[in-house]
Amino acid sequence: MRVDIGNALASVADPGIERDALDALDERVAAAHETIAAGREDGEFGYASLNLPHRTDPEAIYAAVEPFEDPAAILTVGIGGSALGAATITAALSEDDEPGHFVLDNVDPEHTRQTLSTLPLSDTVVHVVSRSGTTAETLANFLVVREAMVDAGVDWTEQTVVTTGDSGPLRALADEHDLPALTVPEGVPGRFSALSAVGLVPAAIQGHDIEAVLAGGRDGAESLADSLFDCPAYAYGALAYALDQRGASIDVMMPYAESLEVFAEWFAQLWAESLGKDGEGQTPARALGATDQHSQLQLYRAGPHDKLVTLVREREREDVPIPETDVEDLAYLGGTGLGELLDAEFEATEASLAAAGVPNVRIELDRIDAAGIGRLLYDMEAATVLAGELADVDTFVQPAVEWGKRAARGLLGGGDFEEADAVADKTTLTVE
Amino acid sequence: MRVDIGNALASVADPGIERDALDALDERVAAAHETIAAGREDGEFGYASLNLPHRTDPEAIYAAVEPFEDPAAILTVGIGGSALGAATITAALSEDDEPGHFVLDNVDPEHTRQTLSTLPLSDTVVHVVSRSGTTAETLANFLVVREAMVDAGVDWTEQTVVTTGDSGPLRALADEHDLPALTVPEGVPGRFSALSAVGLVPAAIQGHDIEAVLAGGRDGAESLADSLFDCPAYAYGALAYALDQRGASIDVMMPYAESLEVFAEWFAQLWAESLGKDGEGQTPARALGATDQHSQLQLYRAGPHDKLVTLVREREREDVPIPETDVEDLAYLGGTGLGELLDAEFEATEASLAAAGVPNVRIELDRIDAAGIGRLLYDMEAATVLAGELADVDTFVQPAVEWGKRAARGLLGGGDFEEADAVADKTTLTVE
Repeated sequence: MRVDIGNALASVADPGIERDALDALDERVAAAHETIAAGREDGEFGYASLNLPHRTDPEAIYAAVEPFEDPAAILTVGIGGSALGAATITAALSEDDEPGHFVLDNVDPEHTRQTLSTLPLSDTVVHVVSRSGTTAETLANFLVVREAMVDAGVDWTEQTVVTTGDSGPLRALADEHDLPALTVPEGVPGRFSALSAVGLVPAAIQGHDIEAVLAGGRDGAESLADSLFDCPAYAYGALAYALDQRGASIDVMMPYAESLEVFAEWFAQLWAESLGKDGEGQTPARALGATDQHSQLQLYRAGPHDKLVTLVREREREDVPIPETDVEDLAYLGGTGLGELLDAEFEATEASLAAAGVPNVRIELDRIDAAGIGRLLYDMEAATVLAGELADVDTFVQPAVEWGKRAARGLLGGGDFEEADAVADKTTLTVE
Repeated sequence: MRVDIGNALASVADPGIERDALDALDERVAAAHETIAAGREDGEFGYASLNLPHRTDPEAIYAAVEPFEDPAAILTVGIGGSALGAATITAALSEDDEPGHFVLDNVDPEHTRQTLSTLPLSDTVVHVVSRSGTTAETLANFLVVREAMVDAGVDWTEQTVVTTGDSGPLRALADEHDLPALTVPEGVPGRFSALSAVGLVPAAIQGHDIEAVLAGGRDGAESLADSLFDCPAYAYGALAYALDQRGASIDVMMPYAESLEVFAEWFAQLWAESLGKDGEGQTPARALGATDQHSQLQLYRAGPHDKLVTLVREREREDVPIPETDVEDLAYLGGTGLGELLDAEFEATEASLAAAGVPNVRIELDRIDAAGIGRLLYDMEAATVLAGELADVDTFVQPAVEWGKRAARGLLGGGDFEEADAVADKTTLTVE
């Protein structure tokens, strides 16, 4: 992976970082790296995530999915970190003529109904993922999916694989029905679990080389170093942190690749849940190049200077030639390719942001392939951990979501929670 | 449509708006409404958008698509405002067993290739949309699509409908090949064109009641009034503006409905491109409930108070029952439904944001149906126009994107543009 932070320097952008501030920051990076390395060494909660590429056993995953040979579809039932990593990897590696990967990560009744009515249930593998085995949305959907399979005369026990903790209702279910079951790794928050069974099972069922994904992650681990000038992941994390400190309160993640659209969602969870605490934390905004040039670029260039724009692309790809045309206004496109056009737009957008003084960073992969996506996920995780060290927050927890969970459970009659009472006391001022 | 701004009052949230400030703001709303009404009356550029529900002729659209009876798929080729409105409407109205609506709104070669290899070209209707007929991405894709159809032995002239301006290469193409052709309305920026042929053609081909979509829009038009307390669209626009002034520089659009996920993208363009200028403009962030409770909510609650969170839902829907289970921890879910769970989470999240002092607004539709989506789109457009009046910006232009367009064209050899030279002069500081 290659990170170019030139357009985030104060000589180009405002906010931007001065060269001497960058050198001072690098001393803090060295200290943070030491903390991270020690945490990894001790397998401490959270830091252990950065050991996954070495720790995850691809053979165990292949063995668990071995009963499922070339199904028509794969359905992941999970939410948040139990869904986004898997969706990111299969989207990045997507090929023609492979079983589609569908995800139920919401409890929208119409969406669940349409998904179940569209999928060939008798030939669909269900991957249900919840560490606790009690995540409300996931278990509600799984109960609905299981009933639909029973109603369709399908033996769900032959088509279900479970990834869960060492105990809990899903583990018990797997034991009872002898389902293939994998374990959510200990010490790893959901949003950091992409490079484990949580993220790799659907890609493995599709026949992708998950060992190569892990190898890409190991490349990332080997690239960690005690200076941001030697480590692309840290260069990104440190820059994003420094720009946030200087007023770039929004981090726009804008890959120039449709296959990385889900990656931007995955990153948004990683960044927001890890760093959004104590009244601080950059807000991730998901964008897609070149499409969002026709949607968000006006704001990025001419709006407030409160953004870092992160541009991601692959450096090598198969192109699709654009046919010649006799329309004069379009003649310049003839003989080029869609990829060439996309690259020109990438560089033009990058330069246009710089010309407007908007800080931006370029991230490049050689290719979006198994090793490439493994590396990208690992490096973004390492960048997040580093940014958390620099910001001095508890990177690996998400306490603020508990309030709403208790309120919802109370509203549904699942216990006596004072948070549920606050719902009834809502202040209203309605216009209709 | 119903808008509840109670949780954006200063008594609940910080930033929040005081009741007397709201009354003062309402006087400015009255003046802005007068400007908007006069602009509509005169059919002025931009303001004319708010006349579309009365001006668009559904019969002309039905006539244009009449040759296409129940195709296997519809492929829209367009970008930005030429794609998002159509995608929003078909996603909102999505039903089982209707032709799928696919969109090429990017120039990612792998994505275009996969799309074309997946679609049954001999039974796919192509809707190509560009006002000028020269939009680089759209025309490049269309040239590729057309060649793929020719290569597949398909007569593309029998399966293509064009929506474009009164002149230009696409209009000439339509004339030459006698293609069904519709007109992009004059005086309407692309992002405001959903309630015209630009947004309605794919839904019409699918057999949806586009007259009902327009009727929903007319309901919105009739609801415009000279006070924010009488007009939900203005209540939303005025509140978002006032909160931006008070430090909520981000507007999170978070529908609790999968079928409105594209709506959030459409809104993001509308809001960003209209209001992002002169160093001002709230940044739209796209979210999805309940999914993003497991991704973004930690940040929304515990991060900086720089956000307005806009929660959208429908009030009536078919539910899907959650089967009973003997797992004790999940017993509370049995006998409820996915929709009931989703609603509990909506209200719990809303209350949890209020409890943290984070301003939020509730928008409710009766149903996400043809009239409902027409109303929602119209009201959000009116809210945007009002916010633009209050912020005193040129709502209907997007000059900042031209720089990059010239640079890209120059890079591709399409002329001599100084912006292209800046690309070569990039400041680099690379870490790998």
